[in-house]
Amino acid sequence: MSSTAGQVIRCKAAVAWEAGKPLVIEEVEVAPPQKMEVRLKILYTALCHTDVYFWEAKGQNPVFPRILGHEAGGIVESVGEGVTELTPGDHVLPVFTGECKECAHCKSQESNMCDLLRINTDRGTMIHDGKSRFSINGKPIYHFVGTSTFSEYTVVHEGCIAKINPLAPLDKVCVLSCGISTGFGATVNVAKPTKGSTVAVFGLGAVGLAAAEGARVSGASRIIGVDLNSNRFDQAKKFGVTEFVNPKDYNKPVQEVIADMTNGGVDRSIECTGNVDAMISAFECVHDGWGVAVLVGVPHKDAVFKTHPMNFLSERTLKGTFFGNYKPRSDIPSVVEKYMNKELELDKFITHQVSFSEINKAFEYMLKGESIRCVIKMEE
Amino acid sequence: MSSTAGQVIRCKAAVAWEAGKPLVIEEVEVAPPQKMEVRLKILYTALCHTDVYFWEAKGQNPVFPRILGHEAGGIVESVGEGVTELTPGDHVLPVFTGECKECAHCKSQESNMCDLLRINTDRGTMIHDGKSRFSINGKPIYHFVGTSTFSEYTVVHEGCIAKINPLAPLDKVCVLSCGISTGFGATVNVAKPTKGSTVAVFGLGAVGLAAAEGARVSGASRIIGVDLNSNRFDQAKKFGVTEFVNPKDYNKPVQEVIADMTNGGVDRSIECTGNVDAMISAFECVHDGWGVAVLVGVPHKDAVFKTHPMNFLSERTLKGTFFGNYKPRSDIPSVVEKYMNKELELDKFITHQVSFSEINKAFEYMLKGESIRCVIKMEE
Repeated sequence: MSSTAGQVIRCKAAVAWEAGKPLVIEEVEVAPPQKMEVRLKILYTALCHTDVYFWEAKGQNPVFPRILGHEAGGIVESVGEGVTELTPGDHVLPVFTGECKECAHCKSQESNMCDLLRINTDRGTMIHDGKSRFSINGKPIYHFVGTSTFSEYTVVHEGCIAKINPLAPLDKVCVLSCGISTGFGATVNVAKPTKGSTVAVFGLGAVGLAAAEGARVSGASRIIGVDLNSNRFDQAKKFGVTEFVNPKDYNKPVQEVIADMTNGGVDRSIECTGNVDAMISAFECVHDGWGVAVLVGVPHKDAVFKTHPMNFLSERTLKGTFFGNYKPRSDIPSVVEKYMNKELELDKFITHQVSFSEINKAFEYMLKGESIRCVIKMEE
Repeated sequence: MSSTAGQVIRCKAAVAWEAGKPLVIEEVEVAPPQKMEVRLKILYTALCHTDVYFWEAKGQNPVFPRILGHEAGGIVESVGEGVTELTPGDHVLPVFTGECKECAHCKSQESNMCDLLRINTDRGTMIHDGKSRFSINGKPIYHFVGTSTFSEYTVVHEGCIAKINPLAPLDKVCVLSCGISTGFGATVNVAKPTKGSTVAVFGLGAVGLAAAEGARVSGASRIIGVDLNSNRFDQAKKFGVTEFVNPKDYNKPVQEVIADMTNGGVDRSIECTGNVDAMISAFECVHDGWGVAVLVGVPHKDAVFKTHPMNFLSERTLKGTFFGNYKPRSDIPSVVEKYMNKELELDKFITHQVSFSEINKAFEYMLKGESIRCVIKMEE
């Protein structure tokens, strides 16, 4: 039992006071974990586009002041009532969505969309009592997707914590909390390309590069990267991308370009942009008879997916995925093992590292498109 | 070797001289089979909606005079050059689509959409020489989908013929040539409901009832039939349908009705109408996390499938199928065996039987909606 168990911990956190303004490192109070909750000491956290999206808060109900952050690695400091699967000292990855192990989704072998702990971006409090565990001078600071990892200590529901191999380097595997698992899982768990197959990846950001990494690990013979920014191709080669298509270079739909390149279409495609036109292209570029397209990118709320139904009747499949179909507690530890046994490469995703006091630099790298992942080291 | 091998055979055929007019039984000449072709003696043929559709020929390029018919059972009379897998006397089912065993589709374990012999409803001749094997007084009578089974003898490409167990009663298994295999295969090969799961079937015609039969055989716990004609429910019970929804009875979308009935959606749905609104409902009525919807019905050429992409992102799958994903030569013999070992029930699909001279009655039964399948006996 740590000496801080049951006590309020005072520590540093990067607080987003309002939309789009630089985060401010503040001293916050972190309350002890309540029923089914765990308090974590965060050692490393990475910045993901989703943090930036909710920090910008465009067209959203703003939830501020808030502690963002959801890709991280840490160590259990103490546990609340009813927590049975974690003890202080465990090495863990907090995850923005959860696994209660009790609901129909958790009991299904196919779903990871837990009824109780499914991602909720609007909620700024813990589900146990609807209150925040963070405060400054008694005033609550809101949580973000149940993780709030831009803090030296945070409180997370047990169902949103993957217990991992303590030998795994947290400064590397922290990126498995979100984007890399999302893209990698979309390929290996959902698209499932066979050895020698052809794969198209739409969008070569971190998630798309992770999808390409999944295709590389699966033994795909051709991996066609599609992006509106041709500068991304050189970097993408490191992730197994063998060919590059910029839709702007052609005067016909990209699905036709890809069909021409591949004698009728690719075997698998993975859409990682969230743009609905890219989704339609990703679907229509797979081969009839056996092609499978997988949607990963989150669409605009008013988007409409449209296609001729004959594109389905000619034996194409369209699936969507959430967090790469991984169940956070049951499956993520095995993804960490894939890194440990060198099957999955992570180091190439981490292009930048900064100290906690420089966290706003991580936002700059991402906004300029310079970083794939910037890891933030919490201890100076 | 039969005494007729290599000779022109004169026999009776039901000729469609023009769109929508009753067929006329004529004496036709059937040329010997050419390279890769087989001449069959048809013993039983059934009438399918697709025959009626191309007989009505609304909005189509009319191909007349033509011998329709594509669900049938017969016996090989003689074979042309290069035919190696069939010999005279073999019991067979001709199929409207083929399996060359050489193309990328035939070599794929997932596809049955043969490049060489895929259904072609516009072609009225044989692919070997672009000519018809049927004639009356030297004038050609056109083929239909390579089968033209409304004739005592017909010529079919070897790749479009399933060799079946000679003990199988052809007056029953003839219906496996098209509709029943299409619906049954859509469920057991594509939707793949597990034991105890919930299944919705849209459209309770022959194909939909066969899809329901597939769900029954798979051990589904609830089979929800959806049809605009409530009179079809009683009959549907024989095929395992346990509940019935007529969308006209509700003032909200049928996908919401089904979600309410099933705590969020069915595990699997199969769309057998071809109506694009039904397709959208069939997709949106499956449960998030694991639901799979399968499209079977052929849509209008101008139809557009529309849905919010979040319906995919929340882990729903949409697939289409053609002929139940069965490869005609490789797979249909095993479907006949399912009937022989009483796993699949066929007799209940055959509601009417007529003699060849009464073939126009089969059209009347179908147009009035009285029959599921009417089998036509060729020998008086």
